[in-house]
Amino acid sequence: MSFHICLVEPEIPNNTGNIARTCAVTDSVLHLVRPLGFSTDDKYLKRSGMDYWHKVDVRYYDSFDEFAAYFPENRFFCATTKADKSYTDFAYRKGDVFVFGKESQGLSKEILEAYRDTLIRIPMRPVVRSHNLGNSAAIILYEALRQTDFPGLR
Amino acid sequence: MSFHICLVEPEIPNNTGNIARTCAVTDSVLHLVRPLGFSTDDKYLKRSGMDYWHKVDVRYYDSFDEFAAYFPENRFFCATTKADKSYTDFAYRKGDVFVFGKESQGLSKEILEAYRDTLIRIPMRPVVRSHNLGNSAAIILYEALRQTDFPGLR
Repeated sequence: MSFHICLVEPEIPNNTGNIARTCAVTDSVLHLVRPLGFSTDDKYLKRSGMDYWHKVDVRYYDSFDEFAAYFPENRFFCATTKADKSYTDFAYRKGDVFVFGKESQGLSKEILEAYRDTLIRIPMRPVVRSHNLGNSAAIILYEALRQTDFPGLR
Repeated sequence: MSFHICLVEPEIPNNTGNIARTCAVTDSVLHLVRPLGFSTDDKYLKRSGMDYWHKVDVRYYDSFDEFAAYFPENRFFCATTKADKSYTDFAYRKGDVFVFGKESQGLSKEILEAYRDTLIRIPMRPVVRSHNLGNSAAIILYEALRQTDFPGLR
């Protein structure tokens, strides 16, 4: 395990399934903060996660604060289109946590304020909408893996 | 426009729709080599591509050779789990083409042989299957964009 992905109240099962697959192939831990917009028995979740779901270290929490309390020593990077800095502006290290908000609204003001020094965005054209959640997680996680020489991967 | 994505005989509409969205937000050109495993009116394609489909420069070809003939000066990088080199081992430049094969089988032996010096893989744990096509395209494209300082993006 090198990195953590935390999805706060994800709404779309395909996205969470997709990210579970990304976590499986990178040995990352997936943290899900309830409420989820789907059942973890959801067929779309399982289909997107393929046969990966049982290979992923998935952990569940009833609130973001409950999750954060488990990792007092780790750095939290929050993905938001409102960030000034690019995800490529930081030097990542093992144990870093990447936090993503719900698809419809992103992260809460409280979370963005709490981590205002480590907000990250993915550069893009200013079009109507942004990347889907699965791609955003993959892009950011692979930059962290690249910087750390792909630990344990080949 | 900075980079090109070429999907050779893609099978799953959600993946192509997802990659169309990635191309839209990065000002990349999407090249689709027939036969496609879906109609371009497919509801899954449009749903995955959201309202992006009409904002993407999508071009169609009847064969890979027909596509390649349009870009005699460009470098072609072919994504395959069979590659020895990581996608992070090359220095990319404007005009580079990233080629992805069909979901079920990847690229043909002929294509892999033709571009044997520029095959690229994404480091991962050796699990049963690999990244989904949409994530692979996003990871590789964003490495190329990162190296070139995100031209035109912000």
